[in-house]
Amino acid sequence: MGKKVLITGFDPFGKDTVNPALEAVKQLDGIVVDDVEIIAQEVPTVFHKSIEVVITAIEKHQPDVVICVGQAGGRTQVTPERIAINIDDARIPDNQQNQPIDEPVYADGPAAYFTTLPVKHMVLAMKKAGVPAAVSNTAGTFVCNHIFYGLMHYLTSNAPTVRGGFIHIPYIPEQATDNGAPSLSLDTIVQGLKAAAIVAANEREDIKVIGGTTH
Amino acid sequence: MGKKVLITGFDPFGKDTVNPALEAVKQLDGIVVDDVEIIAQEVPTVFHKSIEVVITAIEKHQPDVVICVGQAGGRTQVTPERIAINIDDARIPDNQQNQPIDEPVYADGPAAYFTTLPVKHMVLAMKKAGVPAAVSNTAGTFVCNHIFYGLMHYLTSNAPTVRGGFIHIPYIPEQATDNGAPSLSLDTIVQGLKAAAIVAANEREDIKVIGGTTH
Amino acid sequence: MGKKVLITGFDPFGKDTVNPALEAVKQLDGIVVDDVEIIAQEVPTVFHKSIEVVITAIEKHQPDVVICVGQAGGRTQVTPERIAINIDDARIPDNQQNQPIDEPVYADGPAAYFTTLPVKHMVLAMKKAGVPAAVSNTAGTFVCNHIFYGLMHYLTSNAPTVRGGFIHIPYIPEQATDNGAPSLSLDTIVQGLKAAAIVAANEREDIKVIGGTTH
Amino acid sequence: MGKKVLITGFDPFGKDTVNPALEAVKQLDGIVVDDVEIIAQEVPTVFHKSIEVVITAIEKHQPDVVICVGQAGGRTQVTPERIAINIDDARIPDNQQNQPIDEPVYADGPAAYFTTLPVKHMVLAMKKAGVPAAVSNTAGTFVCNHIFYGLMHYLTSNAPTVRGGFIHIPYIPEQATDNGAPSLSLDTIVQGLKAAAIVAANEREDIKVIGGTTH
Repeated sequence: MGKKVLITGFDPFGKDTVNPALEAVKQLDGIVVDDVEIIAQEVPTVFHKSIEVVITAIEKHQPDVVICVGQAGGRTQVTPERIAINIDDARIPDNQQNQPIDEPVYADGPAAYFTTLPVKHMVLAMKKAGVPAAVSNTAGTFVCNHIFYGLMHYLTSNAPTVRGGFIHIPYIPEQATDNGAPSLSLDTIVQGLKAAAIVAANEREDIKVIGGTTH
Repeated sequence: MGKKVLITGFDPFGKDTVNPALEAVKQLDGIVVDDVEIIAQEVPTVFHKSIEVVITAIEKHQPDVVICVGQAGGRTQVTPERIAINIDDARIPDNQQNQPIDEPVYADGPAAYFTTLPVKHMVLAMKKAGVPAAVSNTAGTFVCNHIFYGLMHYLTSNAPTVRGGFIHIPYIPEQATDNGAPSLSLDTIVQGLKAAAIVAANEREDIKVIGGTTH
Repeated sequence: MGKKVLITGFDPFGKDTVNPALEAVKQLDGIVVDDVEIIAQEVPTVFHKSIEVVITAIEKHQPDVVICVGQAGGRTQVTPERIAINIDDARIPDNQQNQPIDEPVYADGPAAYFTTLPVKHMVLAMKKAGVPAAVSNTAGTFVCNHIFYGLMHYLTSNAPTVRGGFIHIPYIPEQATDNGAPSLSLDTIVQGLKAAAIVAANEREDIKVIGGTTH
Repeated sequence: MGKKVLITGFDPFGKDTVNPALEAVKQLDGIVVDDVEIIAQEVPTVFHKSIEVVITAIEKHQPDVVICVGQAGGRTQVTPERIAINIDDARIPDNQQNQPIDEPVYADGPAAYFTTLPVKHMVLAMKKAGVPAAVSNTAGTFVCNHIFYGLMHYLTSNAPTVRGGFIHIPYIPEQATDNGAPSLSLDTIVQGLKAAAIVAANEREDIKVIGGTTH
């Protein structure tokens, strides 16, 4: 029987008018590869509202795996995140002008949740597909980490057999024409996310390969 | 009554023959500033042994605050760490050839511990002292994160009134003559650590200022 | 009457097994856009031989414009070069094990030649096409600068009505899967080079826009 | 008989309120080391005026060597420049609101002048002194390149036995407390400039060591 992957992308935030995360997941919506069906969902770049939208989509679609995707302007690689931390510390306001500083995502939650996705296997699959990729050990402290933490908090309590995680993606070239920042084309990002989603759906255990960082 | 700060530094690791963390904390050993006494302790760059040495020093010196210091080659700033995570994932072997991959620091420990030091206040104090500084949200997955996690795990169970944290420091110029990496002089680092240690000793609550990262 | 652009790409050098410069110019070979015909030519990554191949191709094709293209691993943008300097200073050997250190390209040549291409207009056209681009003020001191200098030296003496220049391009993603370096997809690079080539063919004068660097 | 080195530093420019170049050269003013006397001179960050001030100081002090020093915010190393190019292309206005775009420094000057200082030997001496250093192949297109070009143009025509060059230095820590940029302490920079000045005074020929860049 096939697996179902719910993949979410944020609407644009800050000074950006496009969010490659949303553009990328839209391109994956409805595709079926290797018996894995991918369903895309737009989420707002807003604290807490973003989590509510993910939970509603989980309840509706009953996926096997949930992957939230967000933009990490300045990164050069597609980076599955290892851990979500219980902190909201916004450098800029979200799309509804919320700017929490050093507040927990959930006051009664643990300090952090590890992803339940096989991040090193996902990285390997992306590299094989020709996509620059690496495990990241911080999803920051903005809405990206927030939705990731909220997702893992929900799954742990309400759907422990559903696995979840987060992937950060770089700018696309159109966002980087003037600022000197690194970027990857939307097509490269889509290929990476597709390869990662298939592995996430099919592999419950991660592989043991070197992929840590000294700092 | 005065406060006591125990500050630790690693011996050199990897291809480096000097560890600025150790050199810096040595210079702070025995000084008393603003009624705060600083005691330095060398620790080995070895999984678990490093934690044992810290614990022994805590039991001996009975400090109010413990700050572990490690090198983060490539960073431009002195960076107090926000969170320690329960993972050992070594990109290179430690000084006794241990190279754990994706193992927990403690199998029965929580996913992470937040520092109990006022990291944003420490950053502010360092900036006022003219030292480039910022809060970091990842201490990596090597011995630096390991000792930080081990420290917080010990304090939580055995000495909950003692506060603890970790500070990453850049290369010193002597390590960066050829590799193009950023560096800060030992004197700048020492001034930064001193300013941070005094604030850590005197301030139980952090200040609410912007200091998060979007990713 | 149409214009003819000769565009050259190096074969792979150093540890790389592919050179995106060559892959990109191959895709442009034979296309005609806006009355501009593009002819591609492979050149060896070898001091002096590379210049000979360019000169032979110029004599054969009689182009209006010559653009040499080379890889600049680590850059994030497609970068037309402003100036070629009279120095060979090789950090690594070329593909025939030549490694000149601080020797002139031509002992009787001037210190430098400015490009005769409208580099800022080319940058503007690339940005409009969604391609990250900027003027660069150094082509380095390896075979890229060497062929650029040799080209301008030849054109100045032998074909002063033919205009010439050099464009550096980033890695493609396939080269950057593991090293963390920035990259742009081959398609993005090809679109950039095409836009730049058309402007180079059609515009003799550059536009006056800000595009310098403080250092 | 001793040698005399004239070393110049710019006043602050752009948004900076201090220029480490000026602070550094002030500390070298009047010192005599290894039979080399160093004389410091402040220069304005203004196109053309800066050159006039240097020429006046040369005529007054009759040095053997002239080294202009400027700030290159963002660099990690002290970088002697290899070549000055005949272009003014200002990204920001100078301190008198001049902002030339793609104009020659001197309309009748050659495209470029190579430094007449032994830049690789200077780099070696700085590294031996523990100072991060490298040869740079571009001094940019702002007042730094401008004064360097003007200096070499003057010396070539009017004082061909006097040798000249330019050294770019990084930010100092006080400028980088908030922006995440790399920096070197003023003391490290002063030690580097001193080591470089002594070699510049005593060595007419450069050493043949690898120090080029592929791009």
